[in-house]
Amino acid sequence: MARIFMIGAGNVATHLSQALQKNGHEITQVYSKTQSNAISLSEKLGCSYTNELHNIDPCDIAIIAVKDDVINEVASLLNYRIPIVHTSGTKDLAILGKGVIGVFYPLQTFSKNKIVDFQNIPICIEANNSKFLQFLNNLANSISNNVHQLSSEQRSYLHLSAVMVNNFSNLMYQMATEICEKNKISFDLLKPLIQETSNKVQQMTAIETQTGPARRKDVQTIERHLTLLDSDKEKRKIYEILTESILNRS
Amino acid sequence: MARIFMIGAGNVATHLSQALQKNGHEITQVYSKTQSNAISLSEKLGCSYTNELHNIDPCDIAIIAVKDDVINEVASLLNYRIPIVHTSGTKDLAILGKGVIGVFYPLQTFSKNKIVDFQNIPICIEANNSKFLQFLNNLANSISNNVHQLSSEQRSYLHLSAVMVNNFSNLMYQMATEICEKNKISFDLLKPLIQETSNKVQQMTAIETQTGPARRKDVQTIERHLTLLDSDKEKRKIYEILTESILNRS
Repeated sequence: MARIFMIGAGNVATHLSQALQKNGHEITQVYSKTQSNAISLSEKLGCSYTNELHNIDPCDIAIIAVKDDVINEVASLLNYRIPIVHTSGTKDLAILGKGVIGVFYPLQTFSKNKIVDFQNIPICIEANNSKFLQFLNNLANSISNNVHQLSSEQRSYLHLSAVMVNNFSNLMYQMATEICEKNKISFDLLKPLIQETSNKVQQMTAIETQTGPARRKDVQTIERHLTLLDSDKEKRKIYEILTESILNRS
Repeated sequence: MARIFMIGAGNVATHLSQALQKNGHEITQVYSKTQSNAISLSEKLGCSYTNELHNIDPCDIAIIAVKDDVINEVASLLNYRIPIVHTSGTKDLAILGKGVIGVFYPLQTFSKNKIVDFQNIPICIEANNSKFLQFLNNLANSISNNVHQLSSEQRSYLHLSAVMVNNFSNLMYQMATEICEKNKISFDLLKPLIQETSNKVQQMTAIETQTGPARRKDVQTIERHLTLLDSDKEKRKIYEILTESILNRS
């Protein structure tokens, strides 16, 4: 059981606090620059909140789950005798400065009102000290069956990959939504296909699962699609560049 | 119960025949230009095969499930007194020529060795005659709970959207696979995120579910990712154009 000071009250802080508490850990206090957010999360957890970083209750670890660009500011205000971690996918371990430092990065997309099951969420850990790494490993394993030790460089490439499979795929869903709306087609028709596309890659490689006109080098269909996109320069350009990329891989 | 002549022995023909047979319809014969494929599918179904299109057993409908660019060739060889449909997402109804004609387009990605459950697969139908449309509606409803009447134009926009959510998302998985391999990271780490991304859009809109550096206008992280991609011109270009597209929508 660890005593945890949670810094931040956004999506990651909220979901992570709840998972940790559910698995027997104690959230000693919650901090947020925006006091109403701190109060809101502390009420969810039934713990106290604070708006001070330099005078906090005794704890075993401080988890900094704030926006990337304020992590080092927050870290510099903390008492260095507390081991600290950040939860960022992109930021180097080193930005936390001196002391016992580490990374505790849960690789998932968190939305405010969507409950996530941490059991399967990969947690990537890193530390500047083997004893602390062991501590983080135990903490991560207490909420997830999917814990990995990664260097800062590997983590940044993983985060880049995550942007591709998550944000860029989601952009494809957005563009499809726009096309469907414009042509009075229900987006619901695409939902089973979206589900199957993500299911397939759980068991097969993305190279094996690829289908479609570009994979088949079906120039006629590609030309037809480009014509359909004639009035939408941006989508046409995206269609062209992604099709070319699949052609290059086929 | 319909008597169906199945033309084609590829993925669509195979999965569709099996679903129709399972739901009480009779596949009278299978045709394929490649005789070994016709034999293989006819054995799976326990029916006969033929390599003639102009002299076939009595049936209620011929389903043309062949490559897009040979549909009209196949249709022109068929006896016009049989109602015919094609299964293409892109081709107009009219390419089937004279007679009683229609479209029976199952919107899903089919792989040889992956069983699919037709119950939830959207089937888009179209016909040049209201009685035949009713026949197709009954046939489609006998294997799926998700039947829609769409015009040829709507279907072509739907197919374009399907390429985006399926083939282009799958390309994102491929690019992520390449980045992970190069940096000795297991692609498995991304699988829960891929699953969650597709799950979210089943219940929320893609605009609501979007997250990530571009959505947050987090220029620092975007710059960092572009630096990581400095040695890979193609991925860098794709990252740039898709990021710009998300920025424009945020």
